[in-house]
Amino acid sequence: MMGRAWETYLEQHQGRFVEELLELLRIPSVSTDSVHAGDVRRAAVWVADRLRQAGIEHVEVLETGGHPVVYGDWLHAEGAPTVLIYGHYDVQPADPLDLWETPPFEPAIRAERVYARGASDMKANLLLPVIACEAMLATDGGLPVNVKFILEGEEEIGSPSLEQFVAAEKDRFACDLCVCADGGIGSAEQPTITVGRRGLTALEVHVRSAATDLHSGGHGGMAPNAIHALVQMLATLRDAEGRILVPGFYDQVRPLTDAERAEMAQASFDPDAYKASTGIRDFHGEPEFTPLERNWARPTLEVNGIWGGYQGEGTKTVIPCEAHAKITCRLVPDQTPEAVRDAVIRHLERVAPRHVEVRVDVFPGDADPFVLDPALPALAALERAVAEVSAQPPRRVRAGGTVPITAMFQRLLGVQTITLGASQGDERAHAPNEFVRLANFTRVQRAFGLLFEYLAADAR
Amino acid sequence: MMGRAWETYLEQHQGRFVEELLELLRIPSVSTDSVHAGDVRRAAVWVADRLRQAGIEHVEVLETGGHPVVYGDWLHAEGAPTVLIYGHYDVQPADPLDLWETPPFEPAIRAERVYARGASDMKANLLLPVIACEAMLATDGGLPVNVKFILEGEEEIGSPSLEQFVAAEKDRFACDLCVCADGGIGSAEQPTITVGRRGLTALEVHVRSAATDLHSGGHGGMAPNAIHALVQMLATLRDAEGRILVPGFYDQVRPLTDAERAEMAQASFDPDAYKASTGIRDFHGEPEFTPLERNWARPTLEVNGIWGGYQGEGTKTVIPCEAHAKITCRLVPDQTPEAVRDAVIRHLERVAPRHVEVRVDVFPGDADPFVLDPALPALAALERAVAEVSAQPPRRVRAGGTVPITAMFQRLLGVQTITLGASQGDERAHAPNEFVRLANFTRVQRAFGLLFEYLAADAR
Repeated sequence: MMGRAWETYLEQHQGRFVEELLELLRIPSVSTDSVHAGDVRRAAVWVADRLRQAGIEHVEVLETGGHPVVYGDWLHAEGAPTVLIYGHYDVQPADPLDLWETPPFEPAIRAERVYARGASDMKANLLLPVIACEAMLATDGGLPVNVKFILEGEEEIGSPSLEQFVAAEKDRFACDLCVCADGGIGSAEQPTITVGRRGLTALEVHVRSAATDLHSGGHGGMAPNAIHALVQMLATLRDAEGRILVPGFYDQVRPLTDAERAEMAQASFDPDAYKASTGIRDFHGEPEFTPLERNWARPTLEVNGIWGGYQGEGTKTVIPCEAHAKITCRLVPDQTPEAVRDAVIRHLERVAPRHVEVRVDVFPGDADPFVLDPALPALAALERAVAEVSAQPPRRVRAGGTVPITAMFQRLLGVQTITLGASQGDERAHAPNEFVRLANFTRVQRAFGLLFEYLAADAR
Repeated sequence: MMGRAWETYLEQHQGRFVEELLELLRIPSVSTDSVHAGDVRRAAVWVADRLRQAGIEHVEVLETGGHPVVYGDWLHAEGAPTVLIYGHYDVQPADPLDLWETPPFEPAIRAERVYARGASDMKANLLLPVIACEAMLATDGGLPVNVKFILEGEEEIGSPSLEQFVAAEKDRFACDLCVCADGGIGSAEQPTITVGRRGLTALEVHVRSAATDLHSGGHGGMAPNAIHALVQMLATLRDAEGRILVPGFYDQVRPLTDAERAEMAQASFDPDAYKASTGIRDFHGEPEFTPLERNWARPTLEVNGIWGGYQGEGTKTVIPCEAHAKITCRLVPDQTPEAVRDAVIRHLERVAPRHVEVRVDVFPGDADPFVLDPALPALAALERAVAEVSAQPPRRVRAGGTVPITAMFQRLLGVQTITLGASQGDERAHAPNEFVRLANFTRVQRAFGLLFEYLAADAR
């Protein structure tokens, strides 16, 4: 199976590559929490060093105003296309900590899986193209294509600095194609390539009902309760079956065609296996659509967090004066973050009881949804590369998640983005006991090398 | 105004009494939090020492299985009635800490008020009868009545150990009347005596929707969300105006008579002053009743705390698998904690969506509601004592709060409980910046001495 020198190199150095992955996973680069700002920067420096070690040139840790961007390039493949490789070195928060079997930032290998926060999303993925470049540069002395790396530290907070940063340096990032390493190609047995992703917008709701918390004996029956007000507002967002009740929420949604629904119905999806792996009792969402249609091509609204009043041990007879909730919406073509966000804010303000004060904060980092043109030549090259590291040819699928950069690179650099990574959907990204499979870590390194070769061949 | 020797003694030692109050307030005796178990015990020992210093005999710190009870007596008033004085030395948690102007356990005096957790509820109150006894014993060499003290450390968690403890030692606590120091007599200008209090029952609801938190991209549209399920359940508990929708909740409520409503309408209550002191925009609750009727004579259901998902800085695109809420209900005659609690649990189980798992935990410490017989002779003695330390005779009122011991002492010891304390309703009990007025602290010490004299005189 392995013929080329760079493929042999990959085989021979796999032990070191895994050690490097563990090293990167030990850095708690949680971008949403300012306590970890130093760790995020430490991860950027580590990644920059790793790029240099691979033979990538002009490596820099660039300031953005937020967390830094790591840049590097290798541009000696004359006449060959230039590929911009996108990834992120930041991770989600690790809480609830008590649900982790081993500590989130002390990576542990069990049954050929690496367990750690960021293992699947996306520190293993980030190393794949770096390792592929190292192998080709070390054995062939060059790459078949020109590459540029853009590795950011704010993906998990919606990439608030990236758009302005790329817009200001369009020449630096000029390219023919973007390859996003944040994603996956399924398992070797059921490979997939991703042709669409959802967008995102994020809000926080604050309710206040009094100047201070009040004793529920002395004030109960007279004073309003911020939690009851918030709960009554949030209960109007979705119906019992999961349809979103915000007026205008679905207005911009492009209806699924019969062809699209037929293609989705062909996708490999085992409801029982899904239930077993997630522990859900039953699926939940608009009953007019299948679970996969809802995840790929229907927007969602989720309360991601809620808090108010007393949360400690025992009871506290208090009427809380404040209550809070975090909300995110996943968007599909042709929704825009602005329109959906405005509809949600208008709705919350409309349903707010008159006896409380409501404030809605908008988080930065809106992301547009997208679907790729099926005729894009790079998709065919990707399909060949994925087929070669898998047991069968890949299916084309959409993904429910969001990579904010896709629509942005199209707008600012005029290029399409394809996705190549080692993550699978059951690897508990954003949840306790996140893991990545070492088998994917190894085979997708090879897929990156093959993709570079096929893209170069297509261009000749 | 001051004629008796013990009254002069009170005047002369007021500075020391305030210092002692500050000392007791520095002990963070938070009974609901096991971290503070040692502090609760330290407060018990401090109180026992203070009783001995006052001349009270047979002082003991008694084990209950939970936090200890402090006992002491003085039983040399032959032929005179025996008064059991009830109080508690534990306090509510102090959070949210950032809303305190000065730290909750570093008492500060501003504008003749003492600010600290427990200042109003009820460490100042606890000292009042002790100080009155000290003054009488020091000057007259005796008390006009026999007294027994029962000072517990679990009132703020619903007195879970007390009933069994008192039941096992009925002889020790045998008495003719109980005086509860947990409460107040209003201001000098608008004095009141309390003739009824509400009961209490407390629950905690737990919702689970999956084995772990799930990525809102990879799973949104498929997996249920525990917060949405909880929010939809809680939204069914009350209507927008505050009526409780739990079937059977109001079944046992004794209807208010026209006479009772007329008496309540006479009570001094200034809606604008209430709004200003609490910072509420508007009153909230059953529109068929006035605010005071609702607080005194209608039951309530309040969510005291809610939590689930991500509460940290920024956003986290997660579908939370767990959500939780704390609920308490205030009860009025003839409701029973058991019946109300069962109705709430049945309702929550009925409205729980089928795709989540719901568990309801019951907190210990149910309390029955009560209303005193208006012809009780001790009420007249109390009225005289309060009138003498106030600018006018007191009005009879009910209170929205709960003192679990009242119904219990009636059941176990066959005695009625009257209330004499220094707290006022606007002193932020259970909330940040709790305070007590020094003017009340001083005048109610005197009221205790007078009450002892009038009770003795009535019995002769």
